Parts: sequence; C-alpha cells; structure tokens
Amino acid sequence: MVNGEGATWGQLWGIGVGPGDAEWLTLKGLRVLQSVPVIACPQNRQGEAGMAYGIVKDYVRSHQTILPLHLPFVRDLGELQQAWDVAGKQVVEILAQGQDVAFITEGDASFFSTFTYVAEAVHRFAPLVEIVSIPGVCSPLAAMAALRMPLAIANEKIVILPALYDISELQQALAWADVIVLMKVASVFPQVWQQLAVANLLEHSSLVEWVGSPQETRYPTLTDLAHHQPPYFSILIVRRHAYQFCSPA
Amino acid sequence: MVNGEGATWGQLWGIGVGPGDAEWLTLKGLRVLQSVPVIACPQNRQGEAGMAYGIVKDYVRSHQTILPLHLPFVRDLGELQQAWDVAGKQVVEILAQGQDVAFITEGDASFFSTFTYVAEAVHRFAPLVEIVSIPGVCSPLAAMAALRMPLAIANEKIVILPALYDISELQQALAWADVIVLMKVASVFPQVWQQLAVANLLEHSSLVEWVGSPQETRYPTLTDLAHHQPPYFSILIVRRHAYQFCSPA
Repeated sequence: MVNGEGATWGQLWGIGVGPGDAEWLTLKGLRVLQSVPVIACPQNRQGEAGMAYGIVKDYVRSHQTILPLHLPFVRDLGELQQAWDVAGKQVVEILAQGQDVAFITEGDASFFSTFTYVAEAVHRFAPLVEIVSIPGVCSPLAAMAALRMPLAIANEKIVILPALYDISELQQALAWADVIVLMKVASVFPQVWQQLAVANLLEHSSLVEWVGSPQETRYPTLTDLAHHQPPYFSILIVRRHAYQFCSPA
Repeated sequence: MVNGEGATWGQLWGIGVGPGDAEWLTLKGLRVLQSVPVIACPQNRQGEAGMAYGIVKDYVRSHQTILPLHLPFVRDLGELQQAWDVAGKQVVEILAQGQDVAFITEGDASFFSTFTYVAEAVHRFAPLVEIVSIPGVCSPLAAMAALRMPLAIANEKIVILPALYDISELQQALAWADVIVLMKVASVFPQVWQQLAVANLLEHSSLVEWVGSPQETRYPTLTDLAHHQPPYFSILIVRRHAYQFCSPA
C-alpha cells in the first residue's frame, strides 16, 4: 500500500496490555511493541504518557519514540470526536512516513477501548493503512482470577454492562443472567449497592479495584460496603451461583 | 502449608493459554509454565495431551512432565463429576509431593473452562493447596480482533450465551443487548441462522472458526451461510451497530 506521495504506509497496531499487571502482556503484544519505532498511548491529565504506558514502560526500548495522545475523559461527543480526529491525524502523519505505530491500551483493545476510536479516525483519513489489533487480558477475567472464582461455567449466561449504564438496565440483567459484570462502577455504586441489597445478592457480589496493580483491592462480598466509594478503576461482578475454588488470598 | 505427612504442598496454577495462537500466551503464563515440574492438561480423544498442550508445546522444556487428564466431552453430569474427581486426585498426588502443577487450558481459565472443575476437586481433596489462576486471552476478544471490529464500545451492552443454550434465550438477548456472543455455536447453528434471518441481523452477524489457529476462518456476515456447518470451535457475534475500522484481511 502506498500513500499519496508514492511511499509505503506504515501499519497501525492496537495492543491490549492488560488491566494492570505488566506480565499480563501477551508474547505477541511484547514482540510487536518492541518492533515498532513509535508507540502511541493515551495521555494522563498532566499530558504525559498515561496508564497503559505505565504498565509496559519497562519493556520499551530507549530508541523508541513515545507519542502521548490527548484523549480526554469527557462525555461530550463533539469534544471526543474532535480529540479522536486530532489523535488520528497525528498517527497518520507517522504512518505516512512509512513508520509502524503501536497504539497501546489498558485491558483488551476490542473491549470498551479508546483504540477503536483512534483506529476508526485513522481508517477514515488513510483508508489504505492496515490496522491489526492484538488481543489481551480484559479486566473482568483478571478480576475473577484475583477473586479465585470462574467468571462463568457450564450453561451460565453472562451480561456485561458498560460504565455509563442506566440503573434500570441492572434490574433487567438481574432478572435474566447468571453472571452480571458492571464495568467502572464507581459513579453509580450507591444505587447499585441498594439494588443488590433489595435483590438479596450482596453476598453473591464482589468488587475488585485496580486489578493487577500494586493497590489492587478485593472485596469478595459487598455486605459491608454500603458507604464504600470505589475508585474509577473498579469492577463489580454478581455471581448468582457461588463457585469458589480457594479462599481469596 | 503442610500436607498429611508434614511436607509442604505444591501449588496449583491455572494458565489460560489463549484460544489458538501460541503467542497469545501472557508473559506471566509463560514464566509460570516454564517454572513448574509438572504440566497438567486435558487429553484429546486419543488419550494424548490435547489442544491446550498443542498451543504451548514449543515453550515446554524437556525436563518437564506432561500429565494428560481424562476430561471427556460429554453432557452426563455424573460421568463428568467422576472424571473431575479422578483428575483432581491425580493432581493432588503430585501436589502432595511438594511439586507445583500448572494446569493449562484453551482461552482463559475463568471463562467456561475445565480448569474450574479440576480446581474445585483439588480444593475439596486438599483444602490447604494454594490455587492461583493466571488470566489469558478469551475467544470472543480474539475473534473480534480477527474481524477488525470492537466487541463493544461506549454504552453497548454485551450478552454472552454458553454453548448449550436454549434457543429461546437468543430471542431475549436479541431484544435487549447491543452485542451478543454465542460460544461454540456449531450444534445449534441452523436454528440460530434462522432466527437471525427473521430478525434481519444476518449482515450484523459474524462467525469465526478456529480463531488463532492455522485453519482460522472468518465470515464477516452470515448472509450466505444458511447451509453452513461450523466446526466445534466456532464463535458467533451479533453486533447490532456496525463499527469496523478496516476491511477484514
């Protein structure tokens, strides 16, 4: 594939680096991460390379260029779209020079990930660019490993609700699924706790904060957490049928 | 922790090795896999080390012992329970000698995995054994990476239905979720195809067979697959809202 000036386009990789522990990176993720000249990543609020970079920074080589992208934590779709476009153009500029770029993202690159938006913008501006994503460990699976429970077995039905769900959705999920995962539950935690208390499910519900990082905290039940305030990176799992193979460490 | 004879118990690890590609193993998975004296794995139908072993065999070292366990593909719960117990006892025998065991499993160890049952049996026979599972890449995320689509973004709700679901469950999921994943869809594929046709969702549905392995096959839409017979390792994803960032390779 050649770009407008007749040169070959670089390739864009999306690499899920896992939700916290650096060793959750896959072998393929590591190989590609170390093979590219430029590593793009979301910025933190200070404009520096953010959490995804923090996870894998020990694997980055000194000759590699880090490209922190402004991808703000806001809900305004217009502002987001503009940020994705700007980020996409920054990446396309490098790809147009024939250089490969790896965009790194926490968790998995297909699972509620910023990578999707940046990739879409790159594809819009430079449709000939090849975009390949490398799967990784997603936070619900990491959380269940930390809790020493399965996410699901046998004929269990799973529902995963995103961060900004309507609380009424939870009611529907509780009526139907065996396993319910609530992503980034912090902003609605008091209401969720109330609903779980009413449904008599507090003992079947667990919370994991900062999974895989040094400050990881696990709450195997929610019984005593009526007034708890979880941080942003929190995941809540309701398991209607108990199944634990070891006491949580 | 000491066992009945006063010796120290070995530790049991569960390692998700990913659904196909050997490079989907995580760095932690590789480190632990290569550190244990004994690697346990499900047998294939010929009684040899099966698919999970096939995925990682190039990483196994010559001094490591492979322990293939009989974990049959049957639905009879009595027969399954007996097989899990026998397998659990075989693992406990090694742990009782103070040797660590890594049980390897396709995909992720918390996600519809045989590891859960073996771990439960080990815990029942030897409650002092420490059991730790290492998360891995699960097949839905690998399939979406192969299709070059996100599994979910923004406020999309996900439903994951297990292999042996009642077909009426699909109707409920279609009425509610934005993304529906059908695990190991082979046995009910004709009925599922019919339901998706009626719901006008064939163009929003994709099938991935043998994800990550050399025989991987991707069908970005199901339009022409009325008479298709997918193999056992097939995953079907309905994405109500199209979002593709690159043409599938």
